Amino acid sequence: MSVYLHDIPLPQAKARLEAALIAAGKAGVLEIEEIPLDEHALGRVLAKPIWAKLSSPHYHASAMDGYAVRSDSTSSATPANPLELLINSGAKYVDTGDPLPEWADAVIPIENIEPETYGNQPADPRNPAAIRIRAAVTPWSHVRTMGEDIVATQLVLPAGQVLRPVDLGAIAASGCDSLSVSRKPRVAILPTGSELVAIGLPVKAGDIIEYNSIALAAQVEGWGGEARRYPITADNFDTICQRVQEAARENDLILLNAGSSAGSEDFSSQVVSELGELLVHGVAVRPGHPVILGMIGKEQRNIPIIGVPGYPVSAILTGEIFVEPILARWLGREPHTPVTLKARLTRKVTSPAGDDDYMRLAVGRVGEQVLAAPLSRGAGVITSLVRADGITVIPRGTQGLPAGSEVNVELYRNPSEIENTILAIGSHDICIDILAQYLASRNRRLTSANVGSMGGLVALSRGECHLSGSHLLDPESGEYNLKYIQQILPELPVKLIAFVGRQQGLMVAKGNPKGITSLKDLTRQEVFYINRQSGAGTRVLLDYHLKLLNIPPDTVRGYTHEEFTHLAVAAAICSGRADCGLGIAAAAQALDLDFIPLYQERYDLVIPVRFYRDKLLAPLLEILTEAEFRKTVANLPGYNVEIMGQEII
Amino acid sequence: MSVYLHDIPLPQAKARLEAALIAAGKAGVLEIEEIPLDEHALGRVLAKPIWAKLSSPHYHASAMDGYAVRSDSTSSATPANPLELLINSGAKYVDTGDPLPEWADAVIPIENIEPETYGNQPADPRNPAAIRIRAAVTPWSHVRTMGEDIVATQLVLPAGQVLRPVDLGAIAASGCDSLSVSRKPRVAILPTGSELVAIGLPVKAGDIIEYNSIALAAQVEGWGGEARRYPITADNFDTICQRVQEAARENDLILLNAGSSAGSEDFSSQVVSELGELLVHGVAVRPGHPVILGMIGKEQRNIPIIGVPGYPVSAILTGEIFVEPILARWLGREPHTPVTLKARLTRKVTSPAGDDDYMRLAVGRVGEQVLAAPLSRGAGVITSLVRADGITVIPRGTQGLPAGSEVNVELYRNPSEIENTILAIGSHDICIDILAQYLASRNRRLTSANVGSMGGLVALSRGECHLSGSHLLDPESGEYNLKYIQQILPELPVKLIAFVGRQQGLMVAKGNPKGITSLKDLTRQEVFYINRQSGAGTRVLLDYHLKLLNIPPDTVRGYTHEEFTHLAVAAAICSGRADCGLGIAAAAQALDLDFIPLYQERYDLVIPVRFYRDKLLAPLLEILTEAEFRKTVANLPGYNVEIMGQEII
Repeated sequence: MSVYLHDIPLPQAKARLEAALIAAGKAGVLEIEEIPLDEHALGRVLAKPIWAKLSSPHYHASAMDGYAVRSDSTSSATPANPLELLINSGAKYVDTGDPLPEWADAVIPIENIEPETYGNQPADPRNPAAIRIRAAVTPWSHVRTMGEDIVATQLVLPAGQVLRPVDLGAIAASGCDSLSVSRKPRVAILPTGSELVAIGLPVKAGDIIEYNSIALAAQVEGWGGEARRYPITADNFDTICQRVQEAARENDLILLNAGSSAGSEDFSSQVVSELGELLVHGVAVRPGHPVILGMIGKEQRNIPIIGVPGYPVSAILTGEIFVEPILARWLGREPHTPVTLKARLTRKVTSPAGDDDYMRLAVGRVGEQVLAAPLSRGAGVITSLVRADGITVIPRGTQGLPAGSEVNVELYRNPSEIENTILAIGSHDICIDILAQYLASRNRRLTSANVGSMGGLVALSRGECHLSGSHLLDPESGEYNLKYIQQILPELPVKLIAFVGRQQGLMVAKGNPKGITSLKDLTRQEVFYINRQSGAGTRVLLDYHLKLLNIPPDTVRGYTHEEFTHLAVAAAICSGRADCGLGIAAAAQALDLDFIPLYQERYDLVIPVRFYRDKLLAPLLEILTEAEFRKTVANLPGYNVEIMGQEII
Repeated sequence: MSVYLHDIPLPQAKARLEAALIAAGKAGVLEIEEIPLDEHALGRVLAKPIWAKLSSPHYHASAMDGYAVRSDSTSSATPANPLELLINSGAKYVDTGDPLPEWADAVIPIENIEPETYGNQPADPRNPAAIRIRAAVTPWSHVRTMGEDIVATQLVLPAGQVLRPVDLGAIAASGCDSLSVSRKPRVAILPTGSELVAIGLPVKAGDIIEYNSIALAAQVEGWGGEARRYPITADNFDTICQRVQEAARENDLILLNAGSSAGSEDFSSQVVSELGELLVHGVAVRPGHPVILGMIGKEQRNIPIIGVPGYPVSAILTGEIFVEPILARWLGREPHTPVTLKARLTRKVTSPAGDDDYMRLAVGRVGEQVLAAPLSRGAGVITSLVRADGITVIPRGTQGLPAGSEVNVELYRNPSEIENTILAIGSHDICIDILAQYLASRNRRLTSANVGSMGGLVALSRGECHLSGSHLLDPESGEYNLKYIQQILPELPVKLIAFVGRQQGLMVAKGNPKGITSLKDLTRQEVFYINRQSGAGTRVLLDYHLKLLNIPPDTVRGYTHEEFTHLAVAAAICSGRADCGLGIAAAAQALDLDFIPLYQERYDLVIPVRFYRDKLLAPLLEILTEAEFRKTVANLPGYNVEIMGQEII
């Protein structure tokens, strides 16, 4: 068992797999199947081109309701000298789509004729004895000639076409009622790991909820394959071998999830070696480097197997990097190519020089610039992928990129969604989440990065966001935010809009076991505090009150341990990492902590005037005036909405 | 029964429908249903936001394989003064994902420790008696602290989210195992019309293959609804009423296809009036203006019904314009917004001033310019939609746009497909279709517009395409294309590549009923000729030989009747519109015509040097050298491939 993996570069890994697939005769469409032409053919991939069996129209068809005529019989008609044509000899009524009589070569629309009757009945334009016309018609006017749309034998659709609704129509129009498509590849997904617990079951420390198989299966289905999820298999070499063999009999591809690293219970590479050939163990990509590629099968090694790393971001990226192209190949379609967009990095990033580094990004347009803010790099942080608007690859051989670099973003969203994204950088408040929920139904996405109030104002000064949540107390005036705006944004015209009034206090474990009642308790030796990061409004508040109480920060245990949100502070207390932290009542209630109210503060939105007037932000400002949103916020513990929407400046 | 419709503007039509939906309580999500969390939730729309029930990780987890330690116990370790920690008192082995012991607050990765044994056994890094370290560790290093990814109670996903694979993972990670989604709207699709014939059945003149229901059903499924296709109903008012009532009991929306105009057998508007309220009959959009909007239902008029026009392009656009937004509303998601692209019109277009005109476009990048070539405007030409790369709306009040206008194209394809599109404008040959088929599997799309050889050279001179198919005979030298290139493209460096040698001759009806043997027969009174358009190579050939034979064009009946492709000429003969036409053997064979061979000619590809060297065209030039393609072409009647790929200049 090796402790270290020797990662090989991605193109080399892909080339080894490609060579193995070619050797196994698995480099192209797996099988062709004939299916009936109906709406279920949507999304299937044509395995053979469609050549027209029939022309469309397959006869000369009237393009209008009107009268079929011989064009050369109409040449004398003028406005002054109208011509009369008798029904059924010189003219015949036709509905749109009716075939032309053999003798006719043109149609006069019903609105261009004058009906005639002989006798006293009123003339019915659809049933006259004759028609009068006042203009000649050219041959084939208002006629859809045979083959106007499709000529029999022509190419209607090439093989490889992913069928759209309109394609199904065209296939039918060309006289076909069945089609040859590639069979859907069957993909087995095998979650392994003694620590895994199926969703819906209770969990204890050390248990990991098994959901990679759901995400991988959904990927496979979305890419046109048929996914089959197998039950969780414990970390046992023989059981895993058995399960893989079973799966290999019924599937075209096996995804063996986790156990792909080099830990004491990582059996995947051994399993692949035992059942076939291990092609690759370790690829120079981040996240996701402990990927395994192999080919298994008793006589013929013709079933590819991918050892998918266990961290969710790694697992999903492994799907995108390795699984999607194989499925595309087997389906006979082009691999997925993302829509791309150029954007400017909001901050410097470092990157391992040896790896292709897949960096998730939040992307938004702020004024004239499209900005990309790097999200958490952790392979375990699935929310970084949920939030990601796109991804960029920092290639091998690069150690990072400076702030302001232009990167090529492969988008996960439609570019129009990027245009509808409001970027909020600043202090975190649970009401910002609720605002995001309200905006989602109004064609706006609110993406927020939590860097504290001061960080938000700095981001505004750099033109990196549309607004900042801020609750920075000025110790001298007792006012909020104004002084900091003057200092940090002297040149930028902004609006300061009151958002909520909220209570700050000490969060403590349920039952307050250490009997904490005020900030003075923070100096007790057995009390461990968990702090907010420097620049956070809550940190300013703490420092202000510590000073008032003459408590030196270095007498507070845990003062240097920082978290970035109220909820993260609450989680630290909940887990026993700390005994107390300053924060808001809602966060304490959310994690069932006790709360000792201390101060009432104002939380504002700082919005540059140019964005305040922009239609992007209009729905947000509207929501602040609405009773439903105000009620939702007012119902949270420790919040009041009296000031909501007030323009401070 | 009215003969004319009074179209109302699109926004007004949509507003009437919106008001009716609001009045019927059908303006939002229809119903919410609880579904289990698995891969089948892919693509469903969240009806309620997901708030985390559990943090992720839900305990402090080791982020590496290594040793859990107390960080403050390591402070004295330096490279020179290593520190020893005893297993199970000062350090404990943990795999990635294992929970930290209560007393630990950091992990040292296994590669950073030195294992120690007491005695003579070799030290196993995973099972030593003690570990030696040479650096202090900071608190919480290599630990995924509880809530690092998700903190319980936080917003994981907003309502309205269309679920992606990664979202399913995040929902599971946050401790949920089921979710509330909007019920799929049920949509009835009712094809009506006595002229309709189900696919797969034989057709005679006047029969129309019923396929709109397939395309509409596929649209509905693709947009997240559940489509139900009903059998074809004949044009009978009572039967249609009955069928609509039946459908209204089981569905949320009814699409009544065709019969929406004002013809003698168009019952749709009467049916809607009979069963409920007719809101709109006729909308000012092209194609698709005879749309009907209504609300039906016995007591409560709460089932919307849309009378969908019969022409396939109209039907599909009606789906996009009216059906998709209703489904989006009922599903609680944003309506689809297409990716857009600016492009320059290749030619002038006219447009009815009273209508919003949906114009289909072929789009490609030629050099620095993105060009949009208008496709057929006919509502019956479904291939115009199949070929369309996008659509642009010429708004009401505009009578057209000049060539070179910049238009906003709503793309039907990924922009990267546009970048991989080879635009060919020029003469048509069936081998160009086959080339397109071969290119489809090499990440290239070949889009061809058939305007004749001369038209192709003119398009090249304007920078509107990447290549032209051309077979222009110079009557003086007997050479092909060279003289015309000198005349039309004096400044443009081009390559002239021989493509195929092909036989031209007269196509005549099977059995040659009029006994035609040479061009001299064209002067016979009972022989009707069908011509190619001026500028076509075949037209040049005809005119050249007519002149040689001293036959004045005005003695040829049908000389002025022009078609744009060989196949269209063949179709004209096949349908009896004409007796003969000059063209190629393959076209005659395709439609089972007789063929009188007359001349052998060369068909070349004219390619500007800058594109000849571009990677866009590389696969095309490669295919010309490949045995498989050559064989396919050589097997067509009247073709030889000896010269294929030769550089003439």
